[in-house]
Amino acid sequence: MKLLRVGTAGSERPALLDAEGTLRDLSGVVPDIDGPLLADDAALGRIRAAVDAGSLPALDATGLRVGPPLARIGKIVCIGLNYHDHARETGAEPPAEPVIFFKAADTVVGPYDTVLVPRGSVKTDWEVELAVVIGRTARYAESVEEALGCVAGYAVAHDVSEREFQIERGGTWDKGKNCETFNPLGPWLVTADEVPDPQDLSLKLWVNGELKQDGTTAEQIFPVGEVVRYVSQFMTLYPGDVINTGTPAGVALGAPEPKPFLRAGDVVELEIEGLGRQRQEFKDA
Amino acid sequence: MKLLRVGTAGSERPALLDAEGTLRDLSGVVPDIDGPLLADDAALGRIRAAVDAGSLPALDATGLRVGPPLARIGKIVCIGLNYHDHARETGAEPPAEPVIFFKAADTVVGPYDTVLVPRGSVKTDWEVELAVVIGRTARYAESVEEALGCVAGYAVAHDVSEREFQIERGGTWDKGKNCETFNPLGPWLVTADEVPDPQDLSLKLWVNGELKQDGTTAEQIFPVGEVVRYVSQFMTLYPGDVINTGTPAGVALGAPEPKPFLRAGDVVELEIEGLGRQRQEFKDA
Repeated sequence: MKLLRVGTAGSERPALLDAEGTLRDLSGVVPDIDGPLLADDAALGRIRAAVDAGSLPALDATGLRVGPPLARIGKIVCIGLNYHDHARETGAEPPAEPVIFFKAADTVVGPYDTVLVPRGSVKTDWEVELAVVIGRTARYAESVEEALGCVAGYAVAHDVSEREFQIERGGTWDKGKNCETFNPLGPWLVTADEVPDPQDLSLKLWVNGELKQDGTTAEQIFPVGEVVRYVSQFMTLYPGDVINTGTPAGVALGAPEPKPFLRAGDVVELEIEGLGRQRQEFKDA
Repeated sequence: MKLLRVGTAGSERPALLDAEGTLRDLSGVVPDIDGPLLADDAALGRIRAAVDAGSLPALDATGLRVGPPLARIGKIVCIGLNYHDHARETGAEPPAEPVIFFKAADTVVGPYDTVLVPRGSVKTDWEVELAVVIGRTARYAESVEEALGCVAGYAVAHDVSEREFQIERGGTWDKGKNCETFNPLGPWLVTADEVPDPQDLSLKLWVNGELKQDGTTAEQIFPVGEVVRYVSQFMTLYPGDVINTGTPAGVALGAPEPKPFLRAGDVVELEIEGLGRQRQEFKDA
């Protein structure tokens, strides 16, 4: 199922994109798409039954904003340097174990919302990422299989990053990862049953129409199941948590000088096979 | 005012500790203590009026659990190496600008709740910290005064840390800062009007009755107002966000070998002048 949330920011309602591409209203079946829903087999079953019965009312998509596909996101765990090709372009050694950092849930916006270049920024960069959405609590998962069983689904994430704030201002990377609007998510949360192999998805990102990232999750150093298993040894993952699993090569930071960092007016588009497409215009904060 | 939340985990109700030390029920006046409340002058005014009128019912504190003083915490921003004496004991240079990292809100527990030593941990450490609770949105604050105006109040935080996970496992510090139960908070949220000088508070921490940390916020490299101003240049702070402002000297990491890291059975007590006292027993996860 492709689950999404539509409406003005803060007032989204749950919806579903059906197999024919028709947007359907879910608000009569579930209150919202969030962690409790993803952990509730009965509620998910009600949605599936309504889809099968053809009883979900169609929604007119014209002019309807798409919000992030998940309300009340818990935490966003990010995996750094998780693609062989991206580690190479940044000059970093492939890490011996996953590199973890965080993005605050309040950085999440919808897939077509405006992204703000922070004040004082000269190194705002792009990163297309496969987001993993947790549906069952993962705590000291003992195997990759157990870990994958905790995954509710997948979505496109844009891990927008300010490289000067991230790398040149001391301390951890968090200063460059948590500026407002820095995590467009969506358009859909695609349930895991419809993503048979998360390690075989192409990821693409364009800036002003020019293809910049053209990767595949096959290049991930630590695949999704291992990432969830690993992270669960250090912290408990709860339904509604999100893991951004890293970006392939092709970011501005990895380009020759002068590096093509983003400015107000730039348009970034992102796509992951089967998970939909994002488009953001950048403006000054 | 000393605001707090009492009851079983996940079912706490709002309460107030009055000037005579009597616990009073706030649930007839406000639904909970959270970001929206702290941003709502009218609701805070209703509490003050009820206190003045003596109309809040007393609560029997016997056997009543104290939860974290804040529901639905947004993000927890932490400032690393923010005390001159702690920077010295860890062998680090005092940072040129604040070091930022994150704790996930789901690590927060009540001030007397059990804290879990993570599986595989041999370096679980303590850190008493002054927590700053945000009550008004801080976004590119232009002065320390403006930043301090966004502070709703203060609380005691225990920034429990696993040093091997934090420092020896690659990447940022986040692996050692986000284990479950790693952020006891409370017992009270003391409103800012009752903390005339946040840079003149003593902080103490005992392990099994032995005084380990005995510091003062006067030793902070970056004082509270500067921390809030600085952080707001990189990310937006919202009502209900918390900043852990760093720890003074005296952690296990700074002790001579063999360093006295925490084990199941240890009892840690923490106190900040005017903000109350915590006590946690440590158990194995």
